[in-house]
Amino acid sequence: MTRFFLAAATVAGLLTALPAAAQFQKPEDAVKYRKAAFQVMGTHFGRIGAMASGRAPFDGAAAAANADVVAFVSKLPYAGFVEGTSGTEKGSPKANVWTERAKFDGEAKKMQDAVAALAVAAKANNLDQLKAAFGNAAGTCKSCHDNFRNQ
Amino acid sequence: MTRFFLAAATVAGLLTALPAAAQFQKPEDAVKYRKAAFQVMGTHFGRIGAMASGRAPFDGAAAAANADVVAFVSKLPYAGFVEGTSGTEKGSPKANVWTERAKFDGEAKKMQDAVAALAVAAKANNLDQLKAAFGNAAGTCKSCHDNFRNQ
Repeated sequence: MTRFFLAAATVAGLLTALPAAAQFQKPEDAVKYRKAAFQVMGTHFGRIGAMASGRAPFDGAAAAANADVVAFVSKLPYAGFVEGTSGTEKGSPKANVWTERAKFDGEAKKMQDAVAALAVAAKANNLDQLKAAFGNAAGTCKSCHDNFRNQ
Repeated sequence: MTRFFLAAATVAGLLTALPAAAQFQKPEDAVKYRKAAFQVMGTHFGRIGAMASGRAPFDGAAAAANADVVAFVSKLPYAGFVEGTSGTEKGSPKANVWTERAKFDGEAKKMQDAVAALAVAAKANNLDQLKAAFGNAAGTCKSCHDNFRNQ
């Protein structure tokens, strides 16, 4: 687990060190990429949510594996928020992602920290700890969506 | 790097240990998930390809970071190949994914091994080594696509 976080932190550091302009050929590619990363993350996060809410039986090993994927993939989508890719349709990012970028990046960081904590908590094989850490992480999703995503 | 592979192997082991039926509510969710995972993997793999082909300047740190993402995400999409999700349109999986599942799984394993080797090679900070490992990995993509994907 420690190994995982060391590795994930290294990957994230290197990825964010890349010049943004070099990462996507076209803005549409960035949009596709970030949607895909959120789709993968959301799938695994949702499986933990199903356990936390009692819709699925608690399985500590599965929770831990899913949380590790969420923690790793949480580092990826933000590179896809390149200039000129706001929208107005439901689910798309509002223009204030770019006009309030520091606040947006802060929301991203809070989520990444919360899912890293979720990955730690999930290793405890304890449903109450999982529920608490899942709730915290879900709160960071909601906060960012409330502020920066079209409803 | 060793740390990364230990962690990735652990995650993959746990994920594949989950009962397939428990992983997706609906077949469409599995399709969305696998497409998203390939989209993320392809984005990072493509950046290495751009360096390997000379379309982008060689950057050893970026190559290594991208290869680590490819190696991690390579474990994910195959859970999304659930029964009843073949297609006929370009890019969709052919029915033989399920009638020749052992062969398909073998192709997947070859790709995962090749991108794990790519992640090792990328750490050498040497363009020739990167080119060779990228070529091997790209060959495994092509082989599976030629056999199992609608053209």
